[in-house]
Amino acid sequence: MTRQLLHGNWIFPEAPDRIRLAEDGFLLAEDGVILSLTRERPEGCDGLAVEEFGDQLLIPPFIDLHLHAVQYMNRGLGLDMTLLDWLRTYTYPEESRFADPLYAEQVFDRVCHELWYYGSLRSVIFSSLHREATLILMRKLSEAGLCAYVGKVNMDRNNAPELRETTAESLANTLAWLDEAEKYAPGVQPIITPRFIPSCTPELLQALGELVRERQLPVQSHLNETPEEVDWVRELCPDCANYLEAYEKYGLLPQGRTIMAHCIYNLPDEEKLLKERRITIAHCPSSNMNLGSGIARVREYLEAGMSIGLGSDISGGETLCMQQVIRDTLKSSALLARKRRFELKPLSFRQIFYMATRGGDFFGSCGSFEPGMPLDFLAVDDRALRGPGQRTLEERLQQFMYLGSGAEITKRVLAGRELPEPLWQA
Amino acid sequence: MTRQLLHGNWIFPEAPDRIRLAEDGFLLAEDGVILSLTRERPEGCDGLAVEEFGDQLLIPPFIDLHLHAVQYMNRGLGLDMTLLDWLRTYTYPEESRFADPLYAEQVFDRVCHELWYYGSLRSVIFSSLHREATLILMRKLSEAGLCAYVGKVNMDRNNAPELRETTAESLANTLAWLDEAEKYAPGVQPIITPRFIPSCTPELLQALGELVRERQLPVQSHLNETPEEVDWVRELCPDCANYLEAYEKYGLLPQGRTIMAHCIYNLPDEEKLLKERRITIAHCPSSNMNLGSGIARVREYLEAGMSIGLGSDISGGETLCMQQVIRDTLKSSALLARKRRFELKPLSFRQIFYMATRGGDFFGSCGSFEPGMPLDFLAVDDRALRGPGQRTLEERLQQFMYLGSGAEITKRVLAGRELPEPLWQA
Repeated sequence: MTRQLLHGNWIFPEAPDRIRLAEDGFLLAEDGVILSLTRERPEGCDGLAVEEFGDQLLIPPFIDLHLHAVQYMNRGLGLDMTLLDWLRTYTYPEESRFADPLYAEQVFDRVCHELWYYGSLRSVIFSSLHREATLILMRKLSEAGLCAYVGKVNMDRNNAPELRETTAESLANTLAWLDEAEKYAPGVQPIITPRFIPSCTPELLQALGELVRERQLPVQSHLNETPEEVDWVRELCPDCANYLEAYEKYGLLPQGRTIMAHCIYNLPDEEKLLKERRITIAHCPSSNMNLGSGIARVREYLEAGMSIGLGSDISGGETLCMQQVIRDTLKSSALLARKRRFELKPLSFRQIFYMATRGGDFFGSCGSFEPGMPLDFLAVDDRALRGPGQRTLEERLQQFMYLGSGAEITKRVLAGRELPEPLWQA
Repeated sequence: MTRQLLHGNWIFPEAPDRIRLAEDGFLLAEDGVILSLTRERPEGCDGLAVEEFGDQLLIPPFIDLHLHAVQYMNRGLGLDMTLLDWLRTYTYPEESRFADPLYAEQVFDRVCHELWYYGSLRSVIFSSLHREATLILMRKLSEAGLCAYVGKVNMDRNNAPELRETTAESLANTLAWLDEAEKYAPGVQPIITPRFIPSCTPELLQALGELVRERQLPVQSHLNETPEEVDWVRELCPDCANYLEAYEKYGLLPQGRTIMAHCIYNLPDEEKLLKERRITIAHCPSSNMNLGSGIARVREYLEAGMSIGLGSDISGGETLCMQQVIRDTLKSSALLARKRRFELKPLSFRQIFYMATRGGDFFGSCGSFEPGMPLDFLAVDDRALRGPGQRTLEERLQQFMYLGSGAEITKRVLAGRELPEPLWQA
């Protein structure tokens, strides 16, 4: 039994629009699980040394709900294109390179290092269709001590010549991958990942749905990202009332264990099902703006009690830096509010902080400093950002969230254990 | 006569949608002015040592056409507010602190350091209404070797109690400031700065207009930032057909020497006058998104041959980092294109590069590597951004513009002279 006692300025979201500021608070944890957070030093732990964080900010780590690790090298390229052009010109050719395990090693070292650096200690990741590369990514994440869901992508139609698998290959590789992936649990786990409806035949979707049911697996995919994509799905699936139904039909929406990225053009029936199934929406504003996809109605989703968090979506989004995603969440929400003449309000800073650190609760009970939760946190030295003068804790948090990056993070902790800087080659 | 010969990868905008890539080019300059840029080493300079930049990128420095130096400490605060609320809650109280010269010294050291760090070697700046603080800012910029226009703000109505001057004070201070400011020319020059129409009485505007005519001074102000502001101006100036006319009426739009920030809600007559007068539009997308102001029709302005560049607009914008402004220019433009069903195209990467480095030609002939222009450039070591693998020069430039910051800039040069890192206290 290991006990830890930490002292500092604890800041965390209690609810979507409520923040708790435990200035100069004592946090007691046992075996990496939080026991209490109190104003005074708790009794019964006299012999315990206090880990002192002084005037730093202590916040929950970020959760990145949607990113394509195999698009990492394309960050910032071709962003003046629209989704489907950009996929063909930049994305598919780059993803095809992950047939080479050496290339995969090199790139994933960088991805893991950046996730660590930016404090995104939990993430949900698309790999490529390659089994071996996907396992390399899982190994690297596991070695870095990061917590993640990783999916081997399934795609057996409408893809680029260099990036295609047959239905049989896709399934065989998925099964083999799932078997090998077991050794990285529970820190790094597999997630079933049909790329999106246009990329998967009904046969493949059917088989994946059976796998989800049999093995109790989670699912991630894309939903309602652009009107063009929605139209395409309608053509491909004339028997489905909407895009989401094309997943539902095949059992690909497991209760509370599904992530759908984007969700910009949801119809009312889709929103109803998203809510009933407690499907987590990965809001990806950087990508949605770069590619001119549109703006999701995040504030409405949040206020309707839906599960929603943030995703960097590299390389539709240009960076893994969660502060960039946070800025873009704010900015796109303010533009949407303007469009609705401020009858819909912009997201508040607190709501954005909640989404960035709770991640729609996809990872279960974590993302706050409440008893029973794992002791996960980032320590932030924000002196260089704020300069002279007094600021409240919440103002300091705003400046870190809007101006900071990984540079201010001095310590990254999951379940009471500090994650050391992962090795990588520049 | 000092000659310089430099060798490297020169990249610059030749026109709004045309980029020139002079890979492995030799640039010859004399007394800080460019003589030639050639593929081979030029003849007649055999004794001259070559300054070698290897595989770095050499680009024109950034030009920041609109920023409030006195709002620097508020970066990232209150961004979930709208313009007029945010002015009252955060902006006016902060600006009032610049009555204290010691505070001004401290903040402006940081501002100059950041302008240098981010490579914004030319800028056009709002100070506060304080004469002394404005002169301190001009001195600091001058000491840093930065090139800038700086304005003491004029505001004699509708302001906060802590930030107000009478018409007579405003004019007397302006005259005294202009006299003292002469010593910082030509590197740092004064610019007449009525805050915006709601902040200035007709008497003040009249007197400032006379000053502009008599002393041949440039002017900067705000135009058509939000619909609420436009309505307010309409109420205040019932005799003016539009917002721009409220400046025009008082002679505050000198030909080719005026900057108007924002320009989101321009009317056709205003656009006509902006074009005729060759008024430079400072496009400030970060601020326009943060405060939910709206999206300016930049591509239309650019294609109509209007003068337009970029502004960080701190602290409506959250940072002086021009890459953030560049990203936001791209993002807001893509959203506007979506709104118009892509009948209006998003800005291309080249157009954004042009705006970020040419600044609407407000600084005259600079921002390219053409004979007769001053030798101004940034050297960029982008290895950490791009990693392994081959990229074209233009792809590398994209990654620097969308992902980079000041960290990759290894040298900052104006008129052939390297600017050393300005001193500042953390």
